[in-house]
Amino acid sequence: MAGYREATPDQAQYLDELVEAGLLIPSGVPGVYGRGTTFEDIRTRFDDHVSRAAAFEGAESLRFPPVLPRRQLEASGYLKSFPHLTGVVYAFEGSEIQAQEQARLACDHEDWSEHQHMSDLVLMPAVCYPVYPAIARRGPLPAGGVIIDPGASYAFRREPSGDPARLQMFHMRELVRIAEPDTVQAWRDGWRDRALELLRGLGLDARFDVASDPFFGRSGRMMAASQREQELKFEILAPIAGPEPTAIASFNYHQEHFGALHGITTATGETAHTACLGFGQERIVLALLKTHGLDPAGWPAEVRDALWRA
Amino acid sequence: MAGYREATPDQAQYLDELVEAGLLIPSGVPGVYGRGTTFEDIRTRFDDHVSRAAAFEGAESLRFPPVLPRRQLEASGYLKSFPHLTGVVYAFEGSEIQAQEQARLACDHEDWSEHQHMSDLVLMPAVCYPVYPAIARRGPLPAGGVIIDPGASYAFRREPSGDPARLQMFHMRELVRIAEPDTVQAWRDGWRDRALELLRGLGLDARFDVASDPFFGRSGRMMAASQREQELKFEILAPIAGPEPTAIASFNYHQEHFGALHGITTATGETAHTACLGFGQERIVLALLKTHGLDPAGWPAEVRDALWRA
Repeated sequence: MAGYREATPDQAQYLDELVEAGLLIPSGVPGVYGRGTTFEDIRTRFDDHVSRAAAFEGAESLRFPPVLPRRQLEASGYLKSFPHLTGVVYAFEGSEIQAQEQARLACDHEDWSEHQHMSDLVLMPAVCYPVYPAIARRGPLPAGGVIIDPGASYAFRREPSGDPARLQMFHMRELVRIAEPDTVQAWRDGWRDRALELLRGLGLDARFDVASDPFFGRSGRMMAASQREQELKFEILAPIAGPEPTAIASFNYHQEHFGALHGITTATGETAHTACLGFGQERIVLALLKTHGLDPAGWPAEVRDALWRA
Repeated sequence: MAGYREATPDQAQYLDELVEAGLLIPSGVPGVYGRGTTFEDIRTRFDDHVSRAAAFEGAESLRFPPVLPRRQLEASGYLKSFPHLTGVVYAFEGSEIQAQEQARLACDHEDWSEHQHMSDLVLMPAVCYPVYPAIARRGPLPAGGVIIDPGASYAFRREPSGDPARLQMFHMRELVRIAEPDTVQAWRDGWRDRALELLRGLGLDARFDVASDPFFGRSGRMMAASQREQELKFEILAPIAGPEPTAIASFNYHQEHFGALHGITTATGETAHTACLGFGQERIVLALLKTHGLDPAGWPAEVRDALWRA
């Protein structure tokens, strides 16, 4: 399989334990798992935790399906930075005879790709992507800008791996700030600190660091270095399995990239700046299970209280 | 666009009203919409309604992401019946130079399909599909079989349309029964009646009817006739927009199709039968908004009480 990353021995062992306990359910494809009742309960409790914080600061709740117009992806530059992570939706366009031929090939697990054509949809690369054109439609921002809560929706990354913390489809729990540059930066820095506090409050050995996106190829290494130098991306890391801690949340300052792309202007007519934060919800559940044990009934009282109090 | 269905004038007008009221947010692709706060609130309240009923009958809650292993779809026969509805995930496999060429073509909105290859994933055709292999993994069923609640997950249907009730990606709220034939049939018939009562209790002018799936092509018409004759599928219909009422829930009895495909056996060693019910959640929200008005604050007290009581 192209780009498959082997698990380290402790990652493979953790995955086995999670499957044995009914927390994850293998699908046959690495990085694609069902979730048992307990796993999903922890995830939704964490989600409620973030929703309460978002509601407190007056975020507007919008929701989007996990597909995006291909044209928007093409215009965004995503394919320049992350061609290896993109999923594109193909569909059948053909006659009844071609459909029969396709079904016969598929039934024998042979190649049926000649009958498929690129559609006008791609899989959602990040949960904030549909927020920007939705806000642009409304005209200039109100004074002070907006905070949008697109919830915990599915994002797709083509990263097949034996590491249970590296999923191809996972819940990214985002919040998005669209406003003047100073407002956006202050919001991102504030949330970085609040998120660190929130995650440490759940007993995670979390720390933050300057980070970069997994840009593709040699030119990508330069983009990553520039992103680090400008401190445009922070991550919160916590131990799950493997030799290094894993990123469980990230904070991206896009400057005017999305504002310019979609024509979002502030109340005073300037191009709006944007930032987003994203919690990797499955990774946070995996970090909690690794830290406190596979049965939440035995977790420390303060962690249980924090998640199950509401 | 292949297979695009025009909206009727009243469907087009209803979509305009929904967008104007901020209930739906256009993406630029027909059948792909964001949802405003109010729309999503109604949908999740209805979901809770079904979850309470499912918990009452002891359903086990499992959750699955909206992609399925391609191999499972190939083996299922879905491509024979519904080639026109299937979405397949393609991904990039290539060099840095090919990635640059792809990015250049995409940036100019030209054809970049030569750089994409069929992956081992497809979009979820129906929310019950991953349930069957997950249950098969466990070995023979317990006596009396199982009821699985896979929740309200996203399903994909390649049906671009101007009708707001015909979405390409929507929340299918399923329940699945896996057991002996008599048990499965009784469960399906019982839920058909309970679902009708539940939907009428929300003030919808709902009725049920024998139905068939939208099988492809000429041979599909024979499959549909056979399905009707055997009464394997029921639907609940309610008025939304357009000349005919729209299906808002369906009840499918698969006989031994999935049990045999995945090797699910009953406690006594027979091939298990399966049935599922699915509520089309966005359609139910659209039917409620059409029936009671676009602002839930003005809905009849009994409907508000039923949805917002918990």
